[in-house]
Amino acid sequence: MGKRIGRHTVKIDKPLYIVSASSFVGKKEGEGPLKDYFDYVSDDVMFGEKSWEKAESKFFKSAFSSAIEKSGKKPDDMNYMLAGDLLNQCGGSTYGLRDLKIPFLGIYGACSTFGEAVSLGSMLIDGGFAENIVCGAGSHFCSAEKQFRFPLELGTQRPPTSTWTVTGAGAVVLSTSGFGPKVTYVTTGKIVDMGVKDAANMGAAMAGAACDAIAAHFKETGRTTDYYDVVATGDLGTTGKAIIKKYLAEENLMFDGNLTDCGIEIFDSEKQDTHSGGSGCACSAVTFSGYYYKLLMEKKIKNILLIPTGALMNTTVSQQGESIPSIAHAVAIEM
Amino acid sequence: MGKRIGRHTVKIDKPLYIVSASSFVGKKEGEGPLKDYFDYVSDDVMFGEKSWEKAESKFFKSAFSSAIEKSGKKPDDMNYMLAGDLLNQCGGSTYGLRDLKIPFLGIYGACSTFGEAVSLGSMLIDGGFAENIVCGAGSHFCSAEKQFRFPLELGTQRPPTSTWTVTGAGAVVLSTSGFGPKVTYVTTGKIVDMGVKDAANMGAAMAGAACDAIAAHFKETGRTTDYYDVVATGDLGTTGKAIIKKYLAEENLMFDGNLTDCGIEIFDSEKQDTHSGGSGCACSAVTFSGYYYKLLMEKKIKNILLIPTGALMNTTVSQQGESIPSIAHAVAIEM
Repeated sequence: MGKRIGRHTVKIDKPLYIVSASSFVGKKEGEGPLKDYFDYVSDDVMFGEKSWEKAESKFFKSAFSSAIEKSGKKPDDMNYMLAGDLLNQCGGSTYGLRDLKIPFLGIYGACSTFGEAVSLGSMLIDGGFAENIVCGAGSHFCSAEKQFRFPLELGTQRPPTSTWTVTGAGAVVLSTSGFGPKVTYVTTGKIVDMGVKDAANMGAAMAGAACDAIAAHFKETGRTTDYYDVVATGDLGTTGKAIIKKYLAEENLMFDGNLTDCGIEIFDSEKQDTHSGGSGCACSAVTFSGYYYKLLMEKKIKNILLIPTGALMNTTVSQQGESIPSIAHAVAIEM
Repeated sequence: MGKRIGRHTVKIDKPLYIVSASSFVGKKEGEGPLKDYFDYVSDDVMFGEKSWEKAESKFFKSAFSSAIEKSGKKPDDMNYMLAGDLLNQCGGSTYGLRDLKIPFLGIYGACSTFGEAVSLGSMLIDGGFAENIVCGAGSHFCSAEKQFRFPLELGTQRPPTSTWTVTGAGAVVLSTSGFGPKVTYVTTGKIVDMGVKDAANMGAAMAGAACDAIAAHFKETGRTTDYYDVVATGDLGTTGKAIIKKYLAEENLMFDGNLTDCGIEIFDSEKQDTHSGGSGCACSAVTFSGYYYKLLMEKKIKNILLIPTGALMNTTVSQQGESIPSIAHAVAIEM
């Protein structure tokens, strides 16, 4: 097992390129700080469909089709498609991607799904099972609020710790040949439960799992915290970032300005009234596929450790008094 | 890509053994034809817990812990854990397995999940990323009915095409060393939508995806239909089996008594009033982990092609008029 370098981390030996990336987002995301980086901004949350769920599926289909097209390949060239989302039974991705006719591996890691998709995709290629894999994740503010919290029509007040589910989908094509940043290490997280029960404070619920994955990554690779130009968690938001900095300090992991969070980057929380920041499967998916991928390609940054974070909550079990288990998966991507 | 032999199928090169299997089931399953094969039969559906959802999680924890113990290894020896279930956001598996502290890859393929878990687990080991992986799936009749169809208290009449969600969980340990049947080929299915909209006729919805995966497997491996002692779909039931036989005949695939379905094997549908048969993620998981695994170990059968089948429905989207996309993954397991 030469590829395994620790309990959580494997090394990707083969040259494995992210040869394309695509990000389709909603109107609010298109008004935020990253607006110029997204491939497509829909001017309304319906994206021309009759329901939020169908819009979510259309974001999936659009982003995946676009990533494949940008890679210069065809759907038939894709050996696998990996995707997942927040809708019950991952209905956003399965309905959205059913027409692509690519062998499909459905995954679920809540908002860590993009990290899991890239992790598994990279291992399947490095293991010799595939040459090209398209993978990604998505979410929709309206379908998520309706499903996890309150009907939007209720106009419920949102507490300061709450985050705003990103509307959109992001996808990348991983390939054995081509040009683009390489996936070099994959660190797979464990489920960590901090005992947090507040579905409006997912940053606190996920900070423990994120710290666990980040600490494992640096310990097992032997890299120092200044190795990466960017270390970006998925959707801890400002609340979760404040907590994880304390946890990381306890692990003697100090960051000098290179630690950030996709949920903090994607919105201007003050102007856009998103409180703690962005969240949802799409948060890390579109922030990477739209923003960081372009920074890597333009050599504005040389590498990134991306750590999508997921709150594995289930409303039924939450109503029975349970806490929110969480998970995070780290992927090292280098130009 | 020497491992890939066709659009859907890869060959597992390394000796890769299923070194242990465990099946925990509910009372009704313990009264059916396979009662003597299960590792543990709970005498009620609550399994000592206060809710159906918590019982479902306990089935997961029990089956996974038992499979690890029977393998002679410890949770810390497991490089990955792969699991998924039918509860929204896969709450059965994530809550059930959170205490095991094993790097976790959550998957979702509806009732095909067990097939996806063994497929991905086999590829991760064959690719050199792991030595030991525990993987499995589960479901619960009561939590599934409540979530997908009607409150049980309503006493809704069930149509003849309906199936009975199996209560329980099944898990296996895959390993590079040890004794047991080997995983030799993995055929990953595409999403296939037959346009079926009736959530009480999942056999019809899934038959197309199952036929697609089976036809791909035989075409790509070059094997003949009599190669396997058992060719077992996941949960098509009697309704779906009648349909798939027609589809397979159109592909010139005729079976001589070796084609069956886990959902038909697990219940005596007449005596147990289960109509078309068993279903749910647990159906193929416990039927394989309990029954077929023992038949293989006792050399009563020399091989099996297991094709867990999944109906990727989402109640919200179904209520918006959508049909039920489906998927199936085939795994060749040989003694």
